[in-house]
Amino acid sequence: MTHAPNVSDEFAYIKWLRSELPPATPRLELGPGDDAAILRIEQKERIVLKADSVLEGVHFVIKAPGVKMQPSQGPAATPEEVGRKALCRCLSDMAAMGAVPIACMAAVALHEGAGVKLREELFLGLAKACATYGVTLAGGDTQSWHGPLMMSVSMVGEMQGERPAIRGGAAEGDVIAITGSLGGSILGHHLRFEPRVTEGRFLVRHGISAMIDLSDGISGDLAHICEESSRRQPLGADLVAEAIPVSKAARRLAKIEGKGGERALEHALHDGEDFELCFTVPPFRWQRIVREWPFDTPIRALGVIRSRKPNEPVIRLLRKGEAEALALKSWVHKL
Amino acid sequence: MTHAPNVSDEFAYIKWLRSELPPATPRLELGPGDDAAILRIEQKERIVLKADSVLEGVHFVIKAPGVKMQPSQGPAATPEEVGRKALCRCLSDMAAMGAVPIACMAAVALHEGAGVKLREELFLGLAKACATYGVTLAGGDTQSWHGPLMMSVSMVGEMQGERPAIRGGAAEGDVIAITGSLGGSILGHHLRFEPRVTEGRFLVRHGISAMIDLSDGISGDLAHICEESSRRQPLGADLVAEAIPVSKAARRLAKIEGKGGERALEHALHDGEDFELCFTVPPFRWQRIVREWPFDTPIRALGVIRSRKPNEPVIRLLRKGEAEALALKSWVHKL
Repeated sequence: MTHAPNVSDEFAYIKWLRSELPPATPRLELGPGDDAAILRIEQKERIVLKADSVLEGVHFVIKAPGVKMQPSQGPAATPEEVGRKALCRCLSDMAAMGAVPIACMAAVALHEGAGVKLREELFLGLAKACATYGVTLAGGDTQSWHGPLMMSVSMVGEMQGERPAIRGGAAEGDVIAITGSLGGSILGHHLRFEPRVTEGRFLVRHGISAMIDLSDGISGDLAHICEESSRRQPLGADLVAEAIPVSKAARRLAKIEGKGGERALEHALHDGEDFELCFTVPPFRWQRIVREWPFDTPIRALGVIRSRKPNEPVIRLLRKGEAEALALKSWVHKL
Repeated sequence: MTHAPNVSDEFAYIKWLRSELPPATPRLELGPGDDAAILRIEQKERIVLKADSVLEGVHFVIKAPGVKMQPSQGPAATPEEVGRKALCRCLSDMAAMGAVPIACMAAVALHEGAGVKLREELFLGLAKACATYGVTLAGGDTQSWHGPLMMSVSMVGEMQGERPAIRGGAAEGDVIAITGSLGGSILGHHLRFEPRVTEGRFLVRHGISAMIDLSDGISGDLAHICEESSRRQPLGADLVAEAIPVSKAARRLAKIEGKGGERALEHALHDGEDFELCFTVPPFRWQRIVREWPFDTPIRALGVIRSRKPNEPVIRLLRKGEAEALALKSWVHKL
């Protein structure tokens, strides 16, 4: 690797970026440096589009001299982690559709005078994650302004013959299952998570009925599946408290707060940025998925989709056989 | 039109957005509100990808009580104009490839407490421009943070059988031509320009050799064409001073500055954000383009691509037959 040129010049920077890019898909006819990028689509195809931003002070705090984090705030982020996170958030959405990610664009806004090092590390975090997940960085732009650091990634994926896993396909009696464990992401997972791209692809091949990635917390994200799937009849979800895989981080976070297992369960149910997959699937297909699951990533059933009577809560938590309404305390963006 | 819901809730906002969207292309299988959007590609195809951001304080100043602009700064922007500009910048790049724009995604970051009205107007500016140019808004996200206003648009276009007009295709002897007139965009054009999408499409059908949209100023943008086209032999460009179409705004801006026609010409050569098309084309094809040009938009030849000897400047300005080196004073993003 060479270092980014120590000059305040967009074009020198683009030249350096070009030299450091991981190999692009041969389907990229034209990459960074022209007015736009050109990608060949080889056949009749469903392409999958996503755009998402990470914002300083919302999705990360940048590690810098003088920045002190409280234990409950988790670690500050290196610029590499920010670049990685920006890409992986989009990848997690691709995973939730069961799509194969192909190419991305990155738009970056840096605080004036942020310096070459930050720009270089930010880009390398993005480029390394592109290499890891086989995504081609097709273009983008970097600008400076008076505002904080912002990185917006847009991505193109393909279904390659599979049907996309939308949120609105769940049916009464479907098993609710997730990958991984939940809660306490703020303690570091949100900067290091592995988007479940290959897992998502496996799942759409195995006939799941609906899928979402857990970005806001399962209580809220599962409510989206129920709402979008309620066109024919109102649906809700019952979760079995004892089946919720509470992560070690959720337990650690509860401990930091001076609380116990009940608080850890709350973190598992309502914390954002788990970036695990939550899906629904008819029971007979669930059995087959469990049998054939080829990944190290754990997979677990947590509950069931039920028909919902008027005035019944959307999500219920079953504890020792008793059903209680689950408050939707998960992350809602304040606008 | 209904108004945006007066609640600080992402999901209520998404519902409102969905209700106000212009009709989507029937090829959009899944629009805003799921993990990602799905667009059908009907055949083997080259798709064109672009992402670009507009940043408060860099690309616009928001009209607000207490905001005073100097005459040379041009007008402050309404939120509708910001939404429109964000889309039209991407459209201008699509035009410069000769692509047909199809769908876009918008990622917005708003200052906390910016209010419903700004969010609504920003979106309506985007949505109206989408309707005008036949682009489907396929998704995006809106978030709030401590920073200024930022809107990042990513776009997918298609070549639909035509070859993309890249920067690197110019050859010795090609005519250099542009649409429209140049300079003084800061006085308002940068908020109201019409991206030359249909003109760009016409030009790729008529065998142009290279094209770029004038976003940084013709002195710099034409240098990119020369540089990218110099793989076989070094190329430069000669521009005829008397042929440069100096816009009324460039003259007005020179007048505001207490200067005359020479200063107006400088604005035409070096100002950014004209968003006109600059292209090169073999002379015999240029004749045909002029004959068959069906648009109201003016089109003019300004010069010629020449082979360049070592130590010769890339861009020369011919004034009364004398060639002088043209300084590249156009916009370069400071990083």
